[in-house]
Amino acid sequence: MNTPAFQDQIKHNNCFGCGPHNRKGLQIKSYWEDPEGEAAGRSVCRFQPLPHMSAGPPQFLNGGIIATLIDCHAVCTAIAYAYRQEGRRIGVAPLIWYVTGALNISYLKPTPIDKRVELRAEVIEFREKKTLLTCSLSCPGEPCATAEVIAVRVPTAWYEAQV
Amino acid sequence: MNTPAFQDQIKHNNCFGCGPHNRKGLQIKSYWEDPEGEAAGRSVCRFQPLPHMSAGPPQFLNGGIIATLIDCHAVCTAIAYAYRQEGRRIGVAPLIWYVTGALNISYLKPTPIDKRVELRAEVIEFREKKTLLTCSLSCPGEPCATAEVIAVRVPTAWYEAQV
Repeated sequence: MNTPAFQDQIKHNNCFGCGPHNRKGLQIKSYWEDPEGEAAGRSVCRFQPLPHMSAGPPQFLNGGIIATLIDCHAVCTAIAYAYRQEGRRIGVAPLIWYVTGALNISYLKPTPIDKRVELRAEVIEFREKKTLLTCSLSCPGEPCATAEVIAVRVPTAWYEAQV
Repeated sequence: MNTPAFQDQIKHNNCFGCGPHNRKGLQIKSYWEDPEGEAAGRSVCRFQPLPHMSAGPPQFLNGGIIATLIDCHAVCTAIAYAYRQEGRRIGVAPLIWYVTGALNISYLKPTPIDKRVELRAEVIEFREKKTLLTCSLSCPGEPCATAEVIAVRVPTAWYEAQV
């Protein structure tokens, strides 16, 4: 993990989950698992929850925060993988951007809030406009949630579009 | 909407999405749509996003925040509906509690961050241990995300369990 996180290579990202400059956000950091993982599209993210990120009972991590971690880690992995497929370093212009098309999460067991969680994403299918990934959240070492994420590539102009 | 929100009737809920006393949380408020909606299990929640809840581009709402809103609104609806099925007011002891079993979200279009979003949940199937709900998020009046949520009933003791 000597290379910067995916998120630290992507500029102008204000995201609540993964924007490195969003002070009230989660500021997650994602990396390729290892050189072999980079080729295969396997990434990892470790995150220490804070007390206000709890579920109803204060000892468990909130399901929405879990969804945010999975969503951002998987979509950032899709972006990083697309740069790699084009033989370019992450963040180099022109910008590659993906949005979430679908997020399907199974919650397997309660996740303790006082331990660091580990997310592992993997690119399952890479197509021109869509990347399918799986993502798991474990703590400590035991899966607490698994997910499938569809990341959809959008034109650079989307980034500045108004709705 | 003269009756208190579901969340204001449930005690000791510290949840990031729906705990009324979680100062750094979203503090959503859910209500039955109307008396007919109460009988049918149809609820509504309106929420004004804040700027730090953005996606990568600051003008759009974050997908993880959308997941949190959907999750909490749907699960609180499952809790409220279970109380109703037992002929009891929400929050009256013994506590009824549900957790998220699965969250399947389709993101249809970008959601602007500067407008109030409206969530509508509906109980589709109510069984002893599981409630299936649908939930949509619209803004303004147009669906931006749709979801299916499986809420799983857990014993009261779960609330204080350690992992």
